[in-house]
Amino acid sequence: MAYDFWYWDGIPGRGEFVRLALEAGAVPYRECARSSANALPDDMQSARKHPPFAPPYLISGEMVIAQTANILMFLGEKHGLAPASYEGRLWVNQLQLTIADMVAEVHDTHHPVSADAYYEDQQAEAVVKAHSFRKTRLPKYLAYFESLLAMPDSWLADGQWSYADLSLFQLIDGLLYAFPRRMHTLTPDYPNIMSLHRRVAALPQLQAYFQSSRRLPYNENGIFRHYPQLDGE
Amino acid sequence: MAYDFWYWDGIPGRGEFVRLALEAGAVPYRECARSSANALPDDMQSARKHPPFAPPYLISGEMVIAQTANILMFLGEKHGLAPASYEGRLWVNQLQLTIADMVAEVHDTHHPVSADAYYEDQQAEAVVKAHSFRKTRLPKYLAYFESLLAMPDSWLADGQWSYADLSLFQLIDGLLYAFPRRMHTLTPDYPNIMSLHRRVAALPQLQAYFQSSRRLPYNENGIFRHYPQLDGE
Repeated sequence: MAYDFWYWDGIPGRGEFVRLALEAGAVPYRECARSSANALPDDMQSARKHPPFAPPYLISGEMVIAQTANILMFLGEKHGLAPASYEGRLWVNQLQLTIADMVAEVHDTHHPVSADAYYEDQQAEAVVKAHSFRKTRLPKYLAYFESLLAMPDSWLADGQWSYADLSLFQLIDGLLYAFPRRMHTLTPDYPNIMSLHRRVAALPQLQAYFQSSRRLPYNENGIFRHYPQLDGE
Repeated sequence: MAYDFWYWDGIPGRGEFVRLALEAGAVPYRECARSSANALPDDMQSARKHPPFAPPYLISGEMVIAQTANILMFLGEKHGLAPASYEGRLWVNQLQLTIADMVAEVHDTHHPVSADAYYEDQQAEAVVKAHSFRKTRLPKYLAYFESLLAMPDSWLADGQWSYADLSLFQLIDGLLYAFPRRMHTLTPDYPNIMSLHRRVAALPQLQAYFQSSRRLPYNENGIFRHYPQLDGE
């Protein structure tokens, strides 16, 4: 039975972390907000036992599962996209939550003072926030993930890829789009992260997806936005 | 065997969500950064299989578990602080992640543009951020949690308290400290949340803790800070 997957249409966003796991695991799903006449907020507000606060969310029979890391934990265990051991699954969940923290910081570079106002209305604050992110937070996170990858062919857990590797790929991919100048300066220091990015990009399981219209391009409505004034060497 | 628990000394912070679960579950633990000669960063940087990016983290034998929600999921399952069913545990994890999102937004009200600079150096931006938080985000989150509590004696899952209820208590408690004027205006609209706050405050399992020096007071170094200029009706 295919899952119903709900996320805002038109942006990769947080939904993309779930999509990569579904696609790499060859898990059947319906992209509901793109294929259905039902609008997302209407669906979300319909009566359910366990309502989500926000998309993305996944519907599996009577179950509704929200929060990106929670969805991935569910999919990881059920579809072999996470280590088999309990300790390994906790580790992958811990990594996913650290990736989620960094994703939230990336979002806040263009929305530092109000999630509900336009970027253009908080651009001065965004310049300050993005500078701090590029200078301090970005290299701190990258150094952490690089430290977990001992060799150029390392994965984050158990010697094979898990959903956390797919998510780290997506994070790096988005950063390359949003901050190309800063990433050009930094990436030579993080060769094993960049190797992981290339190896996920080349996974046979993902080639059809990457070439399809299901993989949405980055744009300036999503989390990873390219504003030249927020980038720098 | 007691867990080793590591978190910055001197603030409740994210560590408090873990402490409440440990204390309410009568789980033995050592508060290492407060009782040990070892400084926290030194411990964190020591070689481990699964190093944390940041505190809090818990050490159980050879296992190191970081990220607040991940620690709570581990404790919840092992010590009966979460529903017994898999679906129930996913639901409680989902709630915890939504609470974590709100905690991050509270932190950002006083640190909107740089996590590494002082509040005093970003006060103008903080005033804008806090206004947006008080006006839009705070009532949106509160309305969500209120909608999950059907009656004044409801808990978030399964008719009995779980670690998510302890965390919602801590979130509300911190908001009452940080934004007393705004909460005074808003709380009449959320009677079931406020009932949950009172019922956790009165849990017999937590009375000794609340009266001990282990329960740290809020202050202006933590996540929940009271700056009058960031509050308002």
